[in-house]
Amino acid sequence: MKLYGHPGSTCTRKVLTTLAEKGREAEFVSIDLFKGQQKSPDYLAKHPFGVVPFLEDDGFTMYESRAIIRYLDAKLPGPKLTPGDAPSLGRMEQWISVEQSYFTSPCMTIVRELVFTPMRGGTPDMDKVFKARGETGKVLDVVDRALMSQAYLAGDTFSLADISWLPYLQYLSATPHGTLITERPFVKSWWQRISTRPSWKKVNG
Amino acid sequence: MKLYGHPGSTCTRKVLTTLAEKGREAEFVSIDLFKGQQKSPDYLAKHPFGVVPFLEDDGFTMYESRAIIRYLDAKLPGPKLTPGDAPSLGRMEQWISVEQSYFTSPCMTIVRELVFTPMRGGTPDMDKVFKARGETGKVLDVVDRALMSQAYLAGDTFSLADISWLPYLQYLSATPHGTLITERPFVKSWWQRISTRPSWKKVNG
Ligand SMILES: N[C@@H](CCC(=O)N[C@@H](CS)C(=O)NCC(=O)O)C(=O)O
Ligand SMILES: N[C@@H](CCC(=O)N[C@@H](CS)C(=O)NCC(=O)O)C(=O)O
Repeated sequence: MKLYGHPGSTCTRKVLTTLAEKGREAEFVSIDLFKGQQKSPDYLAKHPFGVVPFLEDDGFTMYESRAIIRYLDAKLPGPKLTPGDAPSLGRMEQWISVEQSYFTSPCMTIVRELVFTPMRGGTPDMDKVFKARGETGKVLDVVDRALMSQAYLAGDTFSLADISWLPYLQYLSATPHGTLITERPFVKSWWQRISTRPSWKKVNG
Repeated sequence: MKLYGHPGSTCTRKVLTTLAEKGREAEFVSIDLFKGQQKSPDYLAKHPFGVVPFLEDDGFTMYESRAIIRYLDAKLPGPKLTPGDAPSLGRMEQWISVEQSYFTSPCMTIVRELVFTPMRGGTPDMDKVFKARGETGKVLDVVDRALMSQAYLAGDTFSLADISWLPYLQYLSATPHGTLITERPFVKSWWQRISTRPSWKKVNG
């Protein structure tokens, strides 16, 4: 199995975490996003939208991080990361969609303005940061209420939904707005639970 | 089963199509998006992000269209809309993610500018339309290549991936840019195949 990606990319990290949970390694082909290698003709021939990750598995190829993690979970032996009963499956899928629909954009706005922009010598746009902080907090309020009565997003067991939130929460936790996580008791303990898993420590290491 | 939604909403229509494929009806609770009923305190108590659809099923409640259709397919008897083998499942998930990540936004820009804006007495922004037309065409080129060797997005059988594209393609087909569909031979025949299904005819009726 060959995984094309970038070690710092959130989408790549979901796939790496899924592999680690399954006790599996893939050959890692690094795509240099800073040099724009994802838009090279060679890579575009694999992934027509020119982003990472991309997976090759014994002749079968596919892209889209949220699709790859579901494929790997269905295919590989090891602990199941998708609940077998319909309500827990629905709940898992709901939180994967909430991540994509409402959380990731404001969360990554904070990260971009406060981490990536200064790295490149730029000045953060604090109006954007404060607006995004409000939106991120609203989503985390909803998550906090849900986690009041369960340990993980899908219910009692760790699932692909938790994996989907990990990379974004990790970046957020490294900004001054990591308090968005620690100020919410149930989000805080969930974050401690999932971010200390061996799989995530390996990927984030 | 109770479905809260709006009959013209793309996200609601995915759920209605899934129910129709399964041969099931749900009690439909109409949420008037034009009057902003989705942001009323009553509805926000159900769906904290204030959008449709929302599902109630015998005490279990959930939101997010792409999650609801997976839940219904897992739970209800009737034809399976999710392939059982990992590669076809991966392929289905890839196309659901392509719809969400690259297709829907430019496609719905065309629809908004050419259908909804004039309906409200406004003038379409043709620069936006032409930019969106280019992006929509690029995605449909990728779909066209994939459909060269298979009848449906996930492979040989109709799946949740086809359902996810139907509502957006329907709106697009009603604009002058419906040619984006009919100019591409494999997209064109796939569109004919999926849009003439009894389930979709019932929903689009
Ligand atoms: N929908 C895609 C999104 C992938 C994506 O945006 N990847 C980022 C890294 S996390 C990337 O390749 N960015 C480089 C670029 O946009 O050129 C997925 O889930 O795989
Ligand atoms: N991620 C949500 C998006 C739902 C959504 O955007 N619904 C639209 C109708 S298709 C809506 O309720 N719009 C009204 C609004 O945004 O206030 C889902 O998949 O269910």
